[in-house]
Amino acid sequence: MSDNITKISMERIDDHVNFRATNTTGNSILMDGSEAIGGKGNGVRPMETLLMGVAGCSSIDIVLILKKMKQELVDIKVDVSATRIKVADATEFDTIKVHYDLWGPLKESKVEKAIEMSLEKYCSVSKMLEAKSEITSSYKIHETT
Amino acid sequence: MSDNITKISMERIDDHVNFRATNTTGNSILMDGSEAIGGKGNGVRPMETLLMGVAGCSSIDIVLILKKMKQELVDIKVDVSATRIKVADATEFDTIKVHYDLWGPLKESKVEKAIEMSLEKYCSVSKMLEAKSEITSSYKIHETT
Repeated sequence: MSDNITKISMERIDDHVNFRATNTTGNSILMDGSEAIGGKGNGVRPMETLLMGVAGCSSIDIVLILKKMKQELVDIKVDVSATRIKVADATEFDTIKVHYDLWGPLKESKVEKAIEMSLEKYCSVSKMLEAKSEITSSYKIHETT
Repeated sequence: MSDNITKISMERIDDHVNFRATNTTGNSILMDGSEAIGGKGNGVRPMETLLMGVAGCSSIDIVLILKKMKQELVDIKVDVSATRIKVADATEFDTIKVHYDLWGPLKESKVEKAIEMSLEKYCSVSKMLEAKSEITSSYKIHETT
């Protein structure tokens, strides 16, 4: 994966702070600023995309790792909550809490290991963000009948 | 802005690696893994969300800064290109190039200043990512008639 290049492009969809960003396969997301500065409320905030990235990246890992472990994951849901702190003129995330709800006949030790392997080893998004943020995780297994 | 909390949640929309992440105002994005691992190709990749965040965050700054500078920005488009490098078991962005195309009767010195102020001071996304990535920028002004 070294020397891999990732590209995105972004266009403005009004005359102010509302944007559409698109990847090379044509999938896009809407982003905007707050309504106070002219956002229309149709998009996600740029800083939110980082938290969405952590949720997506680690969940992909966890799905694949649990599969390899022969654990039957019926469903997964993730909540991410982050605190922001003023650092000079910006406001960075200083803590990022990732909570996983998992459904299925799952072994706790396997789930714990999968989450740990993702956040501490494989998830490139969390590895990028951990330089500035303390990333912690929790989980709950919901047995399905 | 200190003690501000940012939250997102994410649900799985199939039985594999396709997800919808939503912010607290109900705006959502689709994310997925590569097709090789079961992605359906309907979403953006988690690592792409970081680059989209840089584009969105800095463009919001630039729009607002140029407005304060009484510069008439007719349109703005952004292309982000990043290289990935293997760091232990993850592949992080080691360089992120942000190119801005700007339309309008804009002064080069003002545009340059606005981009610099965003990426080096105000854009929280770039401040988060610069710990791991070398972020560089370029721009082109397109005069409109």
